[in-house]
Amino acid sequence: MPAPGENLKINGERLWDSLMEMAKIGPGVAGGNNRQTLTDEDGVGRALFQQWCEAAGCEMGLDQMGNMFAARAGTDPDALPVFVGSHLDTQPTGGKYDGVLGVLGGLEIVRTLNDLGIRTRRPIVVINWTNEEGTRYAPPMLASGVFAGVHTQDWAYGLTDAEGKRFGDELERIGWRGEEETGARRMHAYFELHIEQGPILEAEECDIGVVTHGQGLRWIECRITGKESHTGSTPMAMRRNAGRGLAQITELVHEVAMKHQPNAVGAIGHVDVYPNSRNIIPGRVVCTIDFRSHVLETLEGMVAEVMETAPAICEALGCEIETEIVGSFDPPEFHHGCVTAVRDAAERLGYSHMDIVSGAGHDACWINKIAPAAMVMCPCVDGLSHNEAEEISPEWAARGCDVLFHAVVETAELLE
Amino acid sequence: MPAPGENLKINGERLWDSLMEMAKIGPGVAGGNNRQTLTDEDGVGRALFQQWCEAAGCEMGLDQMGNMFAARAGTDPDALPVFVGSHLDTQPTGGKYDGVLGVLGGLEIVRTLNDLGIRTRRPIVVINWTNEEGTRYAPPMLASGVFAGVHTQDWAYGLTDAEGKRFGDELERIGWRGEEETGARRMHAYFELHIEQGPILEAEECDIGVVTHGQGLRWIECRITGKESHTGSTPMAMRRNAGRGLAQITELVHEVAMKHQPNAVGAIGHVDVYPNSRNIIPGRVVCTIDFRSHVLETLEGMVAEVMETAPAICEALGCEIETEIVGSFDPPEFHHGCVTAVRDAAERLGYSHMDIVSGAGHDACWINKIAPAAMVMCPCVDGLSHNEAEEISPEWAARGCDVLFHAVVETAELLE
Repeated sequence: MPAPGENLKINGERLWDSLMEMAKIGPGVAGGNNRQTLTDEDGVGRALFQQWCEAAGCEMGLDQMGNMFAARAGTDPDALPVFVGSHLDTQPTGGKYDGVLGVLGGLEIVRTLNDLGIRTRRPIVVINWTNEEGTRYAPPMLASGVFAGVHTQDWAYGLTDAEGKRFGDELERIGWRGEEETGARRMHAYFELHIEQGPILEAEECDIGVVTHGQGLRWIECRITGKESHTGSTPMAMRRNAGRGLAQITELVHEVAMKHQPNAVGAIGHVDVYPNSRNIIPGRVVCTIDFRSHVLETLEGMVAEVMETAPAICEALGCEIETEIVGSFDPPEFHHGCVTAVRDAAERLGYSHMDIVSGAGHDACWINKIAPAAMVMCPCVDGLSHNEAEEISPEWAARGCDVLFHAVVETAELLE
Repeated sequence: MPAPGENLKINGERLWDSLMEMAKIGPGVAGGNNRQTLTDEDGVGRALFQQWCEAAGCEMGLDQMGNMFAARAGTDPDALPVFVGSHLDTQPTGGKYDGVLGVLGGLEIVRTLNDLGIRTRRPIVVINWTNEEGTRYAPPMLASGVFAGVHTQDWAYGLTDAEGKRFGDELERIGWRGEEETGARRMHAYFELHIEQGPILEAEECDIGVVTHGQGLRWIECRITGKESHTGSTPMAMRRNAGRGLAQITELVHEVAMKHQPNAVGAIGHVDVYPNSRNIIPGRVVCTIDFRSHVLETLEGMVAEVMETAPAICEALGCEIETEIVGSFDPPEFHHGCVTAVRDAAERLGYSHMDIVSGAGHDACWINKIAPAAMVMCPCVDGLSHNEAEEISPEWAARGCDVLFHAVVETAELLE
């Protein structure tokens, strides 16, 4: 396949302007965005995206999960398209780039191709996946999951938000339920540009993360039972302090993850202490361990070590522990050919790059199950994301999009 | 002072019947009581107590804080009375004995003296202190605190409950605000019988706790600041996990208290983790350390050690910590003569006894500031209190009340 010339670049200023324009819809309270899935604001954002896509000559498709597919025709009507995209929905206190950069980056590719009059053999389809964030309707990556056959559509339709509103009803209400069967489209390849949501690229002063793997995940919910008793009148030797169980397991999780550097991370983010009173020794703690690794054996080894060690820790404290795996997915390995296309693009463009593992989940992780897929990452300031203060520079955005452009266009078979 | 004969005992069956009768007022949902201060149920309980006291020939006094004083006359009109009592109010899910045993134990002393036609030189006054529990109106031991000059009455009147109702208004509403100036009564001595609310006496199979000291207390609120970041995409080396600060300080508190056995206890009961999400590393933890000791230097030494060590622990984790003393009282030492009267009484009656430190606060801790005071403790099942399942045996209650009886009557100068 011919590669685009090294001087072929997207229009960074136009990309940035579009990001800023989209960010006006569902503004947050602190400079970011609140454009949660299937809200009125989501509908307004979708309409703007559709208008831009149609202005760029694309034909818009819409499936029964509300996934949007803006297609730029290729020269070969029988060729499978190259897909590119991400999501326009945000966290309730989200940033302007998480997801949006990947969708509008895809649109910018189409616009640039139009500007330059470049044709590709394969169609290029820019996607907006419905409900990647999962804050209004858990789980995250819902509609790409249905597309990839991970979840059933009926199940997704029946999910309810905090007010009891069904996903299916809300999708209908905002007018973005399509007729097209979800998952019917076949893909030649899928590419997704996303901000890193971690601090590595910025710290390494690196333009581009070539995402080779996603992290696998195990969430272990721990329910530690001790005995509620008075902090004043209970002798030290007679205490069964569930809070000490939490303390020692917090450190255990850290130590176990540290044994597998740099291939693993682990922490406890969720902690509920009962009865949570200043003068009562905790009788019960519920917490969730989050282990991640892109190496399956490492992930399973960490879980096994905690499952083996935590009961002994608790027993020594006079406490008991129940553990339950409440979240689990195995590490995705992105497609070698697609990953190589991304790395080659960065190399060709002269941008500094490094291989990186995606710590967070992305739509690409599900699509990777059914099609060759890869991701491009750009740095974000201080690793901050899921936060209205999320920030990137216009240059980072443009370079990330240049790499996406080269990888997509090469894969879609540029006609010279 | 002449001591009562070793066979002189209270009527244990009558005491138990009165406890069960009082427990019918403000029944809990699980076999205990909900008779919180200044509720209608508190009013009904007070009326029953008054009726019983008047039937036993006592004259009822009522002060401006609602403290009730049932006086049995002595033979010397100029002699200062001996006071005995505790509180009738309960926790929202409280037991049938916490406080109530001390008040009705005082009444049982009067009834027994009446039965036996025994006179004392000094009057004996049975007290029901208002709002010992402090759950509806914090702090605990409110009205005994005003009586002892620890708090002002105006401040107490202005306290509001969760619905915004003022203490002064609610006291008026239930009809138990008296005219008598709070704290005007002078005391020769004060005795209080209470369940242990800890597991020591039951474990030692000991009938009587001779309370020599109360615990002093220091509450240290810790605010640990790290950095919120994604559990998946933040490398281990770049984490600033406030949850690990909590973990290490939880263990530090335990170790520091263990250095001072058996004279100290320490734990963290209150823990709030932010943002408390499964996939976000804790950026902030607020928790409260509870240290207690009956030895002032030990208490201050423990606080100093934590204040010195915790910042270094947090710094090593890339976190910061602010600490603030949010609760403090120095250890009360009960009056030697009164404590001796309690110990001698147990000895004379042939009941097993041991010196004990009160882990919890009691009205006696405040009254000890203004009058010679001491406490008698009886065992409670499994150390359980502030719980509807709180339980004691009729024999424990009777033996505790026998000791109270001997100590009070000897101090009130039994006339033979």
